[in-house]
Amino acid sequence: MNFSMIIYLLGWILNFEALFLIIPTITAIIYSESEVIPFLITIGICLLFGLLITFLKKPRKKTIYAREGFVIVALSWIVLSIFGALPFFFSGCIPSFIDAVFETVSGFTTTGATILSDVESLPKSILLWRSFTHWIGGMGVLVFIMAFLPLSGAQNMNLMKAESPGPSVSKLVPRVKTTALLLYAMYFGLTVLQFLLLIFGGTPVFDSINIAFATAGTGGFGIKNDSIAGYSDYVQIVTTVFMILFGINFNIYFLIIMRKFRDIFRNTELKAYLTVIAVAVLIITLNIGASFPSLGEALKHITFTIASIITTTGFMTVDFDLWPELSRTIIVLLIFIGACAGSTGGGIKISRFIILFKSMAKEIRLLIHPNHIRKLEIDGHKIEHNVIRSTNVYMVCYLMIFVISVLIISFDNHNLVTNFTAVATTINNVGPGLDLVGPTQNFGFFSDTSKLVLIFNMLAGRLELFPVLLLFSPVTWKK
Amino acid sequence: MNFSMIIYLLGWILNFEALFLIIPTITAIIYSESEVIPFLITIGICLLFGLLITFLKKPRKKTIYAREGFVIVALSWIVLSIFGALPFFFSGCIPSFIDAVFETVSGFTTTGATILSDVESLPKSILLWRSFTHWIGGMGVLVFIMAFLPLSGAQNMNLMKAESPGPSVSKLVPRVKTTALLLYAMYFGLTVLQFLLLIFGGTPVFDSINIAFATAGTGGFGIKNDSIAGYSDYVQIVTTVFMILFGINFNIYFLIIMRKFRDIFRNTELKAYLTVIAVAVLIITLNIGASFPSLGEALKHITFTIASIITTTGFMTVDFDLWPELSRTIIVLLIFIGACAGSTGGGIKISRFIILFKSMAKEIRLLIHPNHIRKLEIDGHKIEHNVIRSTNVYMVCYLMIFVISVLIISFDNHNLVTNFTAVATTINNVGPGLDLVGPTQNFGFFSDTSKLVLIFNMLAGRLELFPVLLLFSPVTWKK
Repeated sequence: MNFSMIIYLLGWILNFEALFLIIPTITAIIYSESEVIPFLITIGICLLFGLLITFLKKPRKKTIYAREGFVIVALSWIVLSIFGALPFFFSGCIPSFIDAVFETVSGFTTTGATILSDVESLPKSILLWRSFTHWIGGMGVLVFIMAFLPLSGAQNMNLMKAESPGPSVSKLVPRVKTTALLLYAMYFGLTVLQFLLLIFGGTPVFDSINIAFATAGTGGFGIKNDSIAGYSDYVQIVTTVFMILFGINFNIYFLIIMRKFRDIFRNTELKAYLTVIAVAVLIITLNIGASFPSLGEALKHITFTIASIITTTGFMTVDFDLWPELSRTIIVLLIFIGACAGSTGGGIKISRFIILFKSMAKEIRLLIHPNHIRKLEIDGHKIEHNVIRSTNVYMVCYLMIFVISVLIISFDNHNLVTNFTAVATTINNVGPGLDLVGPTQNFGFFSDTSKLVLIFNMLAGRLELFPVLLLFSPVTWKK
Repeated sequence: MNFSMIIYLLGWILNFEALFLIIPTITAIIYSESEVIPFLITIGICLLFGLLITFLKKPRKKTIYAREGFVIVALSWIVLSIFGALPFFFSGCIPSFIDAVFETVSGFTTTGATILSDVESLPKSILLWRSFTHWIGGMGVLVFIMAFLPLSGAQNMNLMKAESPGPSVSKLVPRVKTTALLLYAMYFGLTVLQFLLLIFGGTPVFDSINIAFATAGTGGFGIKNDSIAGYSDYVQIVTTVFMILFGINFNIYFLIIMRKFRDIFRNTELKAYLTVIAVAVLIITLNIGASFPSLGEALKHITFTIASIITTTGFMTVDFDLWPELSRTIIVLLIFIGACAGSTGGGIKISRFIILFKSMAKEIRLLIHPNHIRKLEIDGHKIEHNVIRSTNVYMVCYLMIFVISVLIISFDNHNLVTNFTAVATTINNVGPGLDLVGPTQNFGFFSDTSKLVLIFNMLAGRLELFPVLLLFSPVTWKK
């Protein structure tokens, strides 16, 4: 295990975190808020550790194998969250440190589950830091570092593999560094586009920045207590469109830039993603459409909600916890399905379901014709055997973490629907669940033990389980 | 596809069903009940079709490939249930035919979920037929036929594979026919032993027969409205012990007969099964033990409930739906875990979890040491690659059926806990769930569509998914 390289990169994580913290600090200065002090203190602490490590502990070997890749990614996110929680804690906005870490993990993992009951009373700089954590976490902080740090090429793939969402990673271009830069460029471009469209609709600048950050990361922290419900139809519709856009695999945008439109139209995952959204909107509209004043109003709210849930953003304009059981059940299913691989969204991912369905169909054919062996394909690409196997293992690990989490949380003695959807909405990085964790509620009432479990779920979900699981495996730490 | 062989065996199924129906007919005669007529009519119908087919349609080729094996098993259980429902329907005890089929499927699949609210008002012959369906379904009707019909050896394995519970089938002795006979002999022996012990404790003969049938098949239909709650401590304790015994792989009893005690003590599945029971009893006793008048009373009821749920029997002595959330969550988990492979119990099965855990641990090791390849072993036997793969596919199919079922049932607009546990308790062949399908409730209130979905779940669960799924696959029916 290359410990010096692990610590070296954690040092860089802290330096970058100090960099990120400049933005809310400037906000505090602009609005002359007293929170400038806690932000500056946090920057100081980050730089103290970060600069010390990066200057003193330059590693001799820079090799990052799969093992180091997983460990670095898991530890980076934990370090990032603990230091990122300091402004909430120092400013007194969140007096409990565990709550502050919960809120920060929820931010970086783009979950958007909050322990706060009244966000409107928070200072603007704190609100911006909350939204900004979504934006940083959405594309991944190590992808960011890779785009700017001079690391040797081939082995960075192990970092990218460990942080990227979805069953397999495809590089856009041969160089990992360029891929990372391209991803961030597209991410930045789309975010700015949404920001400009919001401004164009007359939304205040501060609101537009926050909404754009939280949409881009598919996070869901709002700066209003009623999330997006109080904004105009225009803002809600723009947000709906951008939530759906940020749930799409960024490879698609690269294909647009490269003008490979044919590849886009036959992309199985994209078609499946849009079909699921359309079918869900249709069923829920049939189920509850009549309760809205007009069909247009119904479609606006229902499409917003579906987009918010399937992309695992977690914004809301209506309280879907009050919907009838059929619609609520569909919401729960969408929480699990999640967005496309290679997007900023969470959940199990559409492409993983495609792989599972295809391999299931193949195995059933094999039961009947045991000698009929054919490789699975998606969009003309063969799916390697190890991708199928790791998808299966992913599902088993997912189930195991899910079950154990529900079991531990049930010690709090809240009802089953609350426990089940609390775990579902955190491990899938969505945000709201049903009942006590419904869209108008918050996670503040859970015990500290349960909060730690949910923090674990958010991290495990965002990092696709394996990096976090490997931290706890003795094999990882053996020589 | 060897259609003539399929139809020929379905004919034999009907002949055997006529044979089975003699037992409730005799009961009706003994108690001079008017239900003797509906039973005789049903016997007549079964023999009419059965004898016509078996005499006229002797197949030229007797080959049964994997494909035919699955189709025969699935169709046998459907035919058995539809004809077995006739006495309930003709006697007027269950006026709706779908309800009658639900009750019969619930019987044969050893689920024990009922649509009846008052079983005590039923005639004794009808009650006995309900319990007897559990006994027939417990070990499997095709295993029974194989024990007595002169079918050629090697290909029967395809029937046995398709009907036996668990991820892999091991023959006790080289001949399938002898294996089937041995299994039924042990099954019969254990049932008689329980019956004698119940009689010995002063239980009425009729009650003892019914309890023994329902325990042996791990079914759970009771002849009292309060299930086993009204019986003496002695009856409850004997039933607890026998529920646990019938949840054990019958290979273990064969090992006892062969005096291979060392193999028994190092059997991983048996150890895991008993450990899960012990841990569940411990946690629930800590959770609710104080609410019982004494620790002995607490242990009696809690062990009974755990044994009833994990073996998927579904008897009850207390209403566990009133327990606090932690205990209810454990009940839900046990519903999914199920009993040992090769027992009469349902659920996902302990051995399948062992395979999943072992392969998960192996894959996680592989992430770190990609070249470290070693075959998985259980009890010194290598687990073949195709067993692991089919276990993974099983889990995916299981999840898919589960999700779609919950979705369809939610159209009835009952709450999530009811829908979720109704599907869980039927696909795992347990019987009771929580809330509206709790231990003191029944399934009568569901719509016919939901009842059909639950019927499908019970059959799919009992036959381990694949036979029933293959019925709906076009590949199965292609030339």
